[in-house]
Amino acid sequence: MSFSITRVSHVEIRVTNLDRAWEFYVGLLGLVETERDGGRIYLRGLEERQHHSIVLKQAESPGVAHFSYRVSDPEDLDRLTEFFKAKKLPVVRLPAGSEKGQGEAIRVQDPLGFPVEFYHEMDEAERMLQQFHLHRGVSPMRLDHVNCQTPDVQKGYDYYVGELGFWVSEYTETDDGKLWAVWMHRKQNVHDIALMTGTGPRLHHFAVWVQDMVGVIRACDILAGAGMTDNIERGPGRHGLSNAFFVYVRDPDGNRMEIYTSDYMIPDPDWKPIRWSINDKRRQTFWGHVAPRSWFDEASLVESITDGRLLTPIPAELKDRPDFVT
Amino acid sequence: MSFSITRVSHVEIRVTNLDRAWEFYVGLLGLVETERDGGRIYLRGLEERQHHSIVLKQAESPGVAHFSYRVSDPEDLDRLTEFFKAKKLPVVRLPAGSEKGQGEAIRVQDPLGFPVEFYHEMDEAERMLQQFHLHRGVSPMRLDHVNCQTPDVQKGYDYYVGELGFWVSEYTETDDGKLWAVWMHRKQNVHDIALMTGTGPRLHHFAVWVQDMVGVIRACDILAGAGMTDNIERGPGRHGLSNAFFVYVRDPDGNRMEIYTSDYMIPDPDWKPIRWSINDKRRQTFWGHVAPRSWFDEASLVESITDGRLLTPIPAELKDRPDFVT
Amino acid sequence: MSFSITRVSHVEIRVTNLDRAWEFYVGLLGLVETERDGGRIYLRGLEERQHHSIVLKQAESPGVAHFSYRVSDPEDLDRLTEFFKAKKLPVVRLPAGSEKGQGEAIRVQDPLGFPVEFYHEMDEAERMLQQFHLHRGVSPMRLDHVNCQTPDVQKGYDYYVGELGFWVSEYTETDDGKLWAVWMHRKQNVHDIALMTGTGPRLHHFAVWVQDMVGVIRACDILAGAGMTDNIERGPGRHGLSNAFFVYVRDPDGNRMEIYTSDYMIPDPDWKPIRWSINDKRRQTFWGHVAPRSWFDEASLVESITDGRLLTPIPAELKDRPDFVT
Amino acid sequence: MSFSITRVSHVEIRVTNLDRAWEFYVGLLGLVETERDGGRIYLRGLEERQHHSIVLKQAESPGVAHFSYRVSDPEDLDRLTEFFKAKKLPVVRLPAGSEKGQGEAIRVQDPLGFPVEFYHEMDEAERMLQQFHLHRGVSPMRLDHVNCQTPDVQKGYDYYVGELGFWVSEYTETDDGKLWAVWMHRKQNVHDIALMTGTGPRLHHFAVWVQDMVGVIRACDILAGAGMTDNIERGPGRHGLSNAFFVYVRDPDGNRMEIYTSDYMIPDPDWKPIRWSINDKRRQTFWGHVAPRSWFDEASLVESITDGRLLTPIPAELKDRPDFVT
Repeated sequence: MSFSITRVSHVEIRVTNLDRAWEFYVGLLGLVETERDGGRIYLRGLEERQHHSIVLKQAESPGVAHFSYRVSDPEDLDRLTEFFKAKKLPVVRLPAGSEKGQGEAIRVQDPLGFPVEFYHEMDEAERMLQQFHLHRGVSPMRLDHVNCQTPDVQKGYDYYVGELGFWVSEYTETDDGKLWAVWMHRKQNVHDIALMTGTGPRLHHFAVWVQDMVGVIRACDILAGAGMTDNIERGPGRHGLSNAFFVYVRDPDGNRMEIYTSDYMIPDPDWKPIRWSINDKRRQTFWGHVAPRSWFDEASLVESITDGRLLTPIPAELKDRPDFVT
Repeated sequence: MSFSITRVSHVEIRVTNLDRAWEFYVGLLGLVETERDGGRIYLRGLEERQHHSIVLKQAESPGVAHFSYRVSDPEDLDRLTEFFKAKKLPVVRLPAGSEKGQGEAIRVQDPLGFPVEFYHEMDEAERMLQQFHLHRGVSPMRLDHVNCQTPDVQKGYDYYVGELGFWVSEYTETDDGKLWAVWMHRKQNVHDIALMTGTGPRLHHFAVWVQDMVGVIRACDILAGAGMTDNIERGPGRHGLSNAFFVYVRDPDGNRMEIYTSDYMIPDPDWKPIRWSINDKRRQTFWGHVAPRSWFDEASLVESITDGRLLTPIPAELKDRPDFVT
Repeated sequence: MSFSITRVSHVEIRVTNLDRAWEFYVGLLGLVETERDGGRIYLRGLEERQHHSIVLKQAESPGVAHFSYRVSDPEDLDRLTEFFKAKKLPVVRLPAGSEKGQGEAIRVQDPLGFPVEFYHEMDEAERMLQQFHLHRGVSPMRLDHVNCQTPDVQKGYDYYVGELGFWVSEYTETDDGKLWAVWMHRKQNVHDIALMTGTGPRLHHFAVWVQDMVGVIRACDILAGAGMTDNIERGPGRHGLSNAFFVYVRDPDGNRMEIYTSDYMIPDPDWKPIRWSINDKRRQTFWGHVAPRSWFDEASLVESITDGRLLTPIPAELKDRPDFVT
Repeated sequence: MSFSITRVSHVEIRVTNLDRAWEFYVGLLGLVETERDGGRIYLRGLEERQHHSIVLKQAESPGVAHFSYRVSDPEDLDRLTEFFKAKKLPVVRLPAGSEKGQGEAIRVQDPLGFPVEFYHEMDEAERMLQQFHLHRGVSPMRLDHVNCQTPDVQKGYDYYVGELGFWVSEYTETDDGKLWAVWMHRKQNVHDIALMTGTGPRLHHFAVWVQDMVGVIRACDILAGAGMTDNIERGPGRHGLSNAFFVYVRDPDGNRMEIYTSDYMIPDPDWKPIRWSINDKRRQTFWGHVAPRSWFDEASLVESITDGRLLTPIPAELKDRPDFVT
């Protein structure tokens, strides 16, 4: 069995103050607002033609409501429903329009506990790529990937690679050969989703792609100019793994977003995955910089798809950070 | 019938002086030499793990010996052989090693007259992406696409989209609705191959991708610094079609290479192609600049796969340039 | 006799529609508005601490009202008055506040016919350099220089170098050794004022400096995005002379502004000027590109300081462009 | 009394292995070698026309032999000799050629204990600015400034501003209003020399200027690519004070070099200095990042001008770092 997943498509973020979140994501960073209704604001990047890739949802606490994969074959919604039901996982069927601008969809609490959606159709929105006079902030191009913490990365690998048909670009092992983290993709770059060993299910971050390194630096300058230095958590720096030039920022609610560029394309499905050791300093930051502890300790809780409550995450048995992070 | 083509993979260029060509492609622009034998030098970009993506071949005149597509399924070599034989096209079967570093391959004079190769296996070469201390010139990342002139673009479209399974990203029509040019891809960006109406079969240019706009400007500065201003033909500028930030340079033999960045990803196979009018000035250069006549008049002749002689191209009946190019 | 001129400080531009000009200079390009009164808008760059460096003045036709040098010694206003009176040139004394935000000043129709102001004091305005969240457009840093057409560059050289104490950075000669153009400065970079042989007195352009090459490219993208491709006159390109990476744009009234970066510092007063030949193609554009004829033909008329009427310029006897511009 | 100092001109660095130092400064970072003799290598930046701005001197231990100011009036060498003799400071007179490529000079152990040279003449070297095809590494343009640790910054201020005629661009005060650090210049940018409170006399770092932020990032990538992550000490980041985008690297002997861009011009001598508080986090790094302890603890010892031995530095009474550096 295999599915026609094309990419991770959007993520719904919980924020406690919609206006404040709008000021951060739109006013400072330059995402584009497609529309808003009572409790949500729908955003997209400059390169995107779809109704939304980031949704801000008014909530009582931070966190992630769900993230979503697009399938190119609409019949996969039925096939995925059967697939998850066979696994005894909770599946919800959403008629078209349940999520604004989106066609029929299903949501599942996946084998790792994450609230994941699959859909085929979404309304088209104007592409802003060449409306250069309207670009603002860091000129964010598109949502690129999500990064998740889970206590059992091997289980996640088996599910994503063995069952959903994802490919591996790069991965990280412990000194005794255990899979510590894995970068997996359906679209042709380094990842749609990465899994890292840690307390989970928690969404560690979602990432938007910008066109050049100056865009990443601009993110720091803009946040600092606006007096939000505490929202710059890590970087700018270059990852050894993926070659990304990155910065991690925290929104006013503490949800973490990566702004990055300069990873690479993987057009061949038989790409040979690149192996890194968890204790190779250049893996994390190619220049040798050490990530702060908060980067391992803190992440966004995720919702139950059935009642919307935030799930209590479970710590990993495997150590959740390199030895040199103390 | 459909084939597992993943991308355009390499191009073999005819040059009349290998040392002089090496100085241009490696010494000035920074492509990496994998190896050389008597009559050829094998080059690759910094991001590539394959033995070669550009081959310089000693010849008596400029031109293009062949370009090549990779298939992910090795059995497609047999299927493609049958497919072309059924079309009564000349097909040559090459045992592994006939082209250095490459496994078994087939070559065909395709329906448009181009010398095209299909292969599955190639030796792996060290990826230089993070060997930053060895980057030189414009830091060329990878071969991205080829652009071909042909008198009958509609025929090329039917072949590539209808038979080989390519997707269309953008296209150009004449005022009376004829297909004038088309950008088609298998990997997930704007193109592996573009077809333009013109005297053909001729290879108009091949393109290498760089990471940022500064790399494109550096190409101009480097060539001018080396006294080769005449080798800068067009640009830098931004294409409306594809959004690429580009410069076109001519190698010492006059073969044309594009150095570009900032096109976009197309992860969805049902992407709705973008239409442009041939006489929209912003299509060619978004800023309104007009391409020089040489850009339409001149292109590289291509070899016969059977005897290596250069084919005599045939003019197009349709006008080969916008009305505003005089 | 020598004077304490520190730099060219501001320029007053005539525009026929203040709102339309504001949209161009502030809305699209990102200059900062300090304030406006009935007929004028006062603008500054992000790095500047002074009340204004560009003034938009409502007028019936395009042109330049005056440009202005700052003197560090306030007593120079008296000394310059005497100096110009001794030359029988028209001098006007302006009390503090005659120009908004500015102290006492004098204006003269200088020996070349240009309306030039000298002043010492100006109100301080907030520096926006680190208000990165408020940067817009091309992030223009500061007014850098003016470039003037005059029929007799040698006369201008004698006045500026011999009498006002400017230094020469680079210059251009005709094939028979006549001075064709000269770049002169008081502040420590390539120029505060350049003089070119041509119909004059006319202000050819004023220039704002940006921090990097991407800012220059952004100017093109923004204007094209806003549908103003016709306002991009020349470039982007690199000048041989000065090494500037530039683009020339025309405001909605046709006044010409250069947006540029990457010239160099000249901290030593005994810098040996660099000589160029008028017919060296790399002088104009290091990459060999030829400037359009409009770049030589068109420039802004300048006002009489006594009655505000635009002066009728006089053609040069010397040829006003390189041989290769046809 | 005032002197015609134009700028800090060069610095002589002690290295224990000339070949290894050459590989760092020339092979990796791209400084240009002018020439070498038995015990020294003479380097310059791409924009510089002078024989050398950085001299590598073979020595038994790291450190700084001297740094040097240029005077535009050759008679200042006599006047400075008298000035220093009147202060009972050791002064040495060097005939032309004592330092390769340099005219007559004097050296003094200045009031702060630093080995400082003054000279007027230096041989001209070819400017590499437009030899773009020969640019390598980070394309370093010019030596910009030196930064010195001294126990008594107020004394240094009185000497530089009160006696040598330097101007102040920005400065740092302690919470109780003591001068903690000061940035002073003769050329028209933020500094030729900065003085910081700390154990001294020690040269904290010398700085080379690059044209854009990508050059700073490239420094990190190149050093990491070459396996020298430990030589990246701090950054990249943006200073609040000076607005510089910077990285601090350590050469193989531990001498510290800053690679930076995006400070600003100060053409007016009556510039109003900008005040910062020592405990304002954005002063050090505008983005809030904290400098490592090594950045305060470690610096290069300086030579005695009379016997070449390294001087024993004296700790400051004032605290030598912000409260938040622990």
